Amino acid sequence: RVNSDRLWDSIMEMAKIGPGIAGGNNRQTVTDEDGEGRHLFKRWCEAAGLEMGLDEMGTMFARREGTDPSLPPVYVGSHLDTQPTGGKYDGVLGVLGGLEVVRSLNDLGIKTKHPIVVTNWTNEEGARFAPAMMASGVFAGVLDQAEVYEHVDKDGKKFGEELERIGWKGTEKVGERKIHAFFELHIEQGPILEDEGIDIGVVTHGQGLKWLQVTLTGKEAHTGSTPMPKRRNAGLGMARVIELVHEVAMDYQPDAVGAVGHMQVYPNSRNIIAGRTVFTIDIRSPQKEVLDTMDARVREGIDTICDALDIKYQIEQVGHFDPVTFDKDCVKAIRDAADRLGYSHRNIVSGAGHDACWINRVAPTAMVMCPCVDGLSHNEAEDISKEWAAAGADVLFHAVVETAEI
Amino acid sequence: RVNSDRLWDSIMEMAKIGPGIAGGNNRQTVTDEDGEGRHLFKRWCEAAGLEMGLDEMGTMFARREGTDPSLPPVYVGSHLDTQPTGGKYDGVLGVLGGLEVVRSLNDLGIKTKHPIVVTNWTNEEGARFAPAMMASGVFAGVLDQAEVYEHVDKDGKKFGEELERIGWKGTEKVGERKIHAFFELHIEQGPILEDEGIDIGVVTHGQGLKWLQVTLTGKEAHTGSTPMPKRRNAGLGMARVIELVHEVAMDYQPDAVGAVGHMQVYPNSRNIIAGRTVFTIDIRSPQKEVLDTMDARVREGIDTICDALDIKYQIEQVGHFDPVTFDKDCVKAIRDAADRLGYSHRNIVSGAGHDACWINRVAPTAMVMCPCVDGLSHNEAEDISKEWAAAGADVLFHAVVETAEI
Ligand SMILES: NC(=O)NCCC(=O)O
Ligand SMILES: NC(=O)NCCC(=O)O
Repeated sequence: RVNSDRLWDSIMEMAKIGPGIAGGNNRQTVTDEDGEGRHLFKRWCEAAGLEMGLDEMGTMFARREGTDPSLPPVYVGSHLDTQPTGGKYDGVLGVLGGLEVVRSLNDLGIKTKHPIVVTNWTNEEGARFAPAMMASGVFAGVLDQAEVYEHVDKDGKKFGEELERIGWKGTEKVGERKIHAFFELHIEQGPILEDEGIDIGVVTHGQGLKWLQVTLTGKEAHTGSTPMPKRRNAGLGMARVIELVHEVAMDYQPDAVGAVGHMQVYPNSRNIIAGRTVFTIDIRSPQKEVLDTMDARVREGIDTICDALDIKYQIEQVGHFDPVTFDKDCVKAIRDAADRLGYSHRNIVSGAGHDACWINRVAPTAMVMCPCVDGLSHNEAEDISKEWAAAGADVLFHAVVETAEI
Repeated sequence: RVNSDRLWDSIMEMAKIGPGIAGGNNRQTVTDEDGEGRHLFKRWCEAAGLEMGLDEMGTMFARREGTDPSLPPVYVGSHLDTQPTGGKYDGVLGVLGGLEVVRSLNDLGIKTKHPIVVTNWTNEEGARFAPAMMASGVFAGVLDQAEVYEHVDKDGKKFGEELERIGWKGTEKVGERKIHAFFELHIEQGPILEDEGIDIGVVTHGQGLKWLQVTLTGKEAHTGSTPMPKRRNAGLGMARVIELVHEVAMDYQPDAVGAVGHMQVYPNSRNIIAGRTVFTIDIRSPQKEVLDTMDARVREGIDTICDALDIKYQIEQVGHFDPVTFDKDCVKAIRDAADRLGYSHRNIVSGAGHDACWINRVAPTAMVMCPCVDGLSHNEAEDISKEWAAAGADVLFHAVVETAEI
């Protein structure tokens, strides 16, 4: 078993960097706070005898040598970036859980045949720069590095320039590493495990996702003196699309979810009918056909809505992944570990996207989940117990050691 | 007749201060640009021999002495502040039209019995700080000066502090001036005059307005892993309220309008269900009963919407004025002037709020309107012809001189 006190202390230490306003964190990707978190993680890795690699997307790879260095390493990790109002565990548990795996191996004097690489993927959240899972997406060859470098945040700052500015743009080419297997520990971010009182989620699948960024263009006009029939109201159009997304998701739930969390209104004045709105639709389903149908219905609905309001629209897909089926053997390694350790477990589908979803395309991959209080995540109040974290890290430890071979 | 070239040149000169991004202006109240515009106006007033007064709300009063200085002055003016994406004429025409009245009187060597005071009311637009017509509202005793000093903009800056910062907070107590009559020239901001090919709108009434700032509080949660029935989506709540406001307005139009132009979403991340939204409902009607009914229906609807979504709400009225009936004699002075000058005219109801609406409560008041292209205002593309401006200023000149007596 891992040293759960040390794991917990490290999580709490990391949470001091980029504190939020309500007990959680605001350590968004490639900000100064992200840089500070990376430095702390690097110091810990070096103290554990690991050697740090850094690629052009800023992803950190901390290597513990294997007894056969020619074997491809087992990778373990997640992300240290957070939402603007994020929790202390989302991502962090997986990176520091990975670190705890090697710290425990050091304590026990265990050597593995395969090297082990603890990984911190850059920009998993996609909050500041779309899409989510950006660095793992480039690693897996799904996203184009030159293109995502140009992606801008709300202030117009470019991802590539910000990565360079904080000093964490490496020189290693992205995606050239051979990966024997990848394991990611993560909090569930949903209510199932807690509701059912189960210790471990063995993640068999991941939901597919589409992010559709919609721009509606109407006409700025006075809210008082413009007759109702003369209005071309991009704000009303946005409201109707938000309702549409909700209706479509309700039609397919529990096998679908949908919402709009990001909205911008121009010029955003009390007495100006919005001339332009920009917002992002988030639709998801574990079934590809459902996701595709939702996508089609949403696009058709937007066309109808805009036609009725005499406004123009533009839809840009800024994020997308198909539903994921994780690697049979890796999933089995996790289930076996939970069995061996005597933890209760069940198969589960990840509702959120994870770096593991992309890496699964280029290497055998699986995920371990632990419960979180009230299924709450992407909220500063996100919470887990030390015991849940310990159980997850124990399972991770066993699955990794099993796969890396002693 | 006034010197319409001079009037037009002055408008174009003023438009150079705080240029917008699309040919209009961004000279929002108590910004540096507002300060610069005030300096230019002051220089022009001084060149015309006027004496400048400045009250604690920053309202500028440029006085041309009458032959009987003991008589209460005739006031004429409007506002120099603009929307963030405003036009060159909204407000400016009324202030510089007033200046042109005294410049023309100077040219003609005409003295009036009553003094004439050209006025620039502070914060008419209400874009940066609610409510609109702030200074005239304090002048009329409807708004509380100490309270509005505390009103904050989106960055949390206070109105009173910003007024002081730009150096335009005067020492004169607000509302102590005796006003013989007040005349305001303004662009229509609606399509009627242009559609009907009429030169002059004789404004008999003004629409009433309510601004309801609504705060919805749900719960931030992950858009992917939070099951639909567990969501408390403040963004969806806002969308439904926007639709509600539209429906209510449609039920009473053409005697009502309604929209939501101001919206803020927290934390505004693509994969976080909004935990909080803040937005302002703008509803208007020329009939008080209709306005009150709309208000009641909107409040009731918000209650129902929030109940269904398990979210909390708070409603704060941040702006309000009842429908206005302008002074019979002042209205007649305007109509007579248009007749005398041979301009076509019709009675009209102002769809927008104006400083004249507040001043009408403390002194005989009326307004002159001229057409604007396509009824468009609160848009940088707002446009009028020089001839329309000239006709409006001519009528203003005659009504003012008539009332100030030669
Ligand atoms: N795990 C997680 O919150 N990932 C962010 C990407 C997503 O929205 O699912
Ligand atoms: N005239 C004008 O645009 N006033 C601003 C206040 C309002 O919204 O009516």
